[in-house]
Amino acid sequence: MYYQVVTQCIHNLKCLDKWLDKAEQFSETKKFDVNVLLNARLAPDQRPFIYQVQSACDYVKGAAAWLSGQMPPKHPDNEQTIGELRERISKTVAFAEGVKEAQYAGAGERKVSFSWAPGKIMSGADYLLQMTIPNTFFHLTTAYSILRHNGVDVGKMDFLGSINLVDA
Amino acid sequence: MYYQVVTQCIHNLKCLDKWLDKAEQFSETKKFDVNVLLNARLAPDQRPFIYQVQSACDYVKGAAAWLSGQMPPKHPDNEQTIGELRERISKTVAFAEGVKEAQYAGAGERKVSFSWAPGKIMSGADYLLQMTIPNTFFHLTTAYSILRHNGVDVGKMDFLGSINLVDA
Repeated sequence: MYYQVVTQCIHNLKCLDKWLDKAEQFSETKKFDVNVLLNARLAPDQRPFIYQVQSACDYVKGAAAWLSGQMPPKHPDNEQTIGELRERISKTVAFAEGVKEAQYAGAGERKVSFSWAPGKIMSGADYLLQMTIPNTFFHLTTAYSILRHNGVDVGKMDFLGSINLVDA
Repeated sequence: MYYQVVTQCIHNLKCLDKWLDKAEQFSETKKFDVNVLLNARLAPDQRPFIYQVQSACDYVKGAAAWLSGQMPPKHPDNEQTIGELRERISKTVAFAEGVKEAQYAGAGERKVSFSWAPGKIMSGADYLLQMTIPNTFFHLTTAYSILRHNGVDVGKMDFLGSINLVDA
C-alpha cells in the first residue's frame, strides 16, 4: 500500500501542472504578470503559492525516499518563475516514479527522523499516514485555493485528475 | 491499510473541532456573528465553510461504510450553526469509529457506485486512493483555509493534530 499511496500523491502533484497552465492563461487574458499569482497567499502570515508547491513536492519526494530507505535528493527552494516551478514538479515526479514497488518492502518499519525534532523518530507507517498524506494534500489544496481565490478557473476535477471509473 | 487510512482521516476530521473553537473565540473577541465565518468562501462560485465540513464528513462516512460493505447512514445537509456542525462531525466520527478493522476485510475488491455516475463503479482500492484521501483532505484544507483567510488563528499543527514521534 505504500507504493500505491505514494503513486496517488504523485498523480495529484502532476495535476498541478494543469493548474499552472490555467494560471498562465488567466494572467495572459487579464494582462498581468503571472508572478503575482506565484507570490499570492491567503493570509499575510501564510507562505505564498511558490512555497506551497515546493512543500507539496518535498512531501512526495520525502515519502518516496524515506519509505524506500534512501536519502532524498536535494532540491533547493530557489524557484521564482512558473517555468522553474514546472521543473521542480518534474524532477520530483521523476525521482518518485523511479522508486519501484519492491523498494518499499519493509517501509512500515523504517525509521524516519526530522531536522526539527532532534532525538525523535517516526515509524514509516506513521510517517505515511500522519505526515505524507495530510501534508501533501494540505499543500496541494492550499496552492489550488490561492489560485481559486484569485480567479483562476480551476475546479474539483482539476484537483482530482483522472479517476478510474469502470463499467458496472 | 484501509482501516489505518480511514482512522487517519477520522483523526484529521476531529481536528476540525479545535478550529471551530478558535473560530468561535475569534468571533467573540472581534464581536461579530460566527455565522459569517460559517458562510464564508474563498471564491464567489465556491461552496461555503459549512459545505466544506459536510463534505469532509461525508467522505469519511462514505469510506467507512462502502469499504466495510455497509450503506452509509443518511446525514442531511441542514446544518446552520456551529453547534450543528459539531454534531455533524460527532455523528460522523461515531459511525466511522464504530467500524472495526476486521470489517474492512476484502475492502479493495468491493464495488463502489456513485449517483453522479450511473452504470459505473470504482473498486474499493481506487475509491480509497482516488476519492477518500484526496477529497477528505481537499475539503478539510478548504475549510481550514477559509478560516485562515478570515483571520482565525489556526496553524499547521491544528491541521495535523497529534503526531506519533517517539524517542530515537
